[in-house]
Amino acid sequence: MSLVLDPAAQDLLFREARTANTFTDEPVSDEQIQAIYDLIKFGPTAFNQSPLRITLVRSQEARERLVQHMHEKNAPKTLTAPLVAILSADNEFQAELPYLLPFFPNAAEVFYSERSEREQAASLNAALQSAYFILGIRAAGLAAGPMTGIDQAAIQKEFLDDDHTVLMVVNIGKPGEDAWFPRSPRLELDQVVTTI
Amino acid sequence: MSLVLDPAAQDLLFREARTANTFTDEPVSDEQIQAIYDLIKFGPTAFNQSPLRITLVRSQEARERLVQHMHEKNAPKTLTAPLVAILSADNEFQAELPYLLPFFPNAAEVFYSERSEREQAASLNAALQSAYFILGIRAAGLAAGPMTGIDQAAIQKEFLDDDHTVLMVVNIGKPGEDAWFPRSPRLELDQVVTTI
Repeated sequence: MSLVLDPAAQDLLFREARTANTFTDEPVSDEQIQAIYDLIKFGPTAFNQSPLRITLVRSQEARERLVQHMHEKNAPKTLTAPLVAILSADNEFQAELPYLLPFFPNAAEVFYSERSEREQAASLNAALQSAYFILGIRAAGLAAGPMTGIDQAAIQKEFLDDDHTVLMVVNIGKPGEDAWFPRSPRLELDQVVTTI
Repeated sequence: MSLVLDPAAQDLLFREARTANTFTDEPVSDEQIQAIYDLIKFGPTAFNQSPLRITLVRSQEARERLVQHMHEKNAPKTLTAPLVAILSADNEFQAELPYLLPFFPNAAEVFYSERSEREQAASLNAALQSAYFILGIRAAGLAAGPMTGIDQAAIQKEFLDDDHTVLMVVNIGKPGEDAWFPRSPRLELDQVVTTI
């Protein structure tokens, strides 16, 4: 094998982990979220810009408002998940760059003076961090259910502000009964990789 | 601790792993790339759309053409890395959906009939897969050097076609001398997470 990552970790994060569609009612604690964040915050982003923002939906009232902006197939999952997170990109991330990038304090002025540049960078880098977050949930022994079948603009308007772009909603919890479909096929290497 | 992932795996993937700026000349083999792909291909994407495409730059000629489209600070790293990958999103990923999503064979017609919808989905989901790829490189005991300080449009024109959007270039190899800057600060949980 060419991997040095322990096989049990490979299974936990990738091979046996699955997108859960049902959950038990076991709660997900703030301590678990803290542990997940303290792991995935180290995942790389461009200039350490760290634009991911996470809105944890804990109140029943907020959850009911959220599912009104989701595809009808996704709403029931989010209504029953122990915890739900709205992931967004902060398009004004550059405000934190002097702290986040101490060796290049004027990076914001050089590279991100235009809002369009910031939006493009924030969406890409917050998406990277969304993947770290999904794997971090799995690292905590939980199942993630990421969904993009949602009305991103409506959720942004309902819960955030114009400086945030909603990327996805993630259900979080222990998998319940019949939690997933059969594993779908993957592309072969030669369908994905070209060598030049 | 709230994580079940082995601490050594946490270190390998997140805590001790760093974005490398220098590399040894030890080659990265096709077998290593196969092992990385066979792990990360299981990472979730919306409707299993799997839009990430990877262009491995192995010839000196292609590498020299590539660095002409990179920021001057990034070019030297890419000239000396054992292996370089261009990561792109396939905006015509829906062609593979009947194979990738056997339980919903007409998903392409329902959700991705417009090119603009495909481009948006491909960029987000290929970014998720880019993060899986970065962590997969680390899982193989290698260092990744992802870079967005590149002319994405020029690289697309030089090496790909109009159906692909370039996301980043990733240097791959064993870290060399003085491979990284000191670890930069991260945001605190309460700067990132809001509870509603």
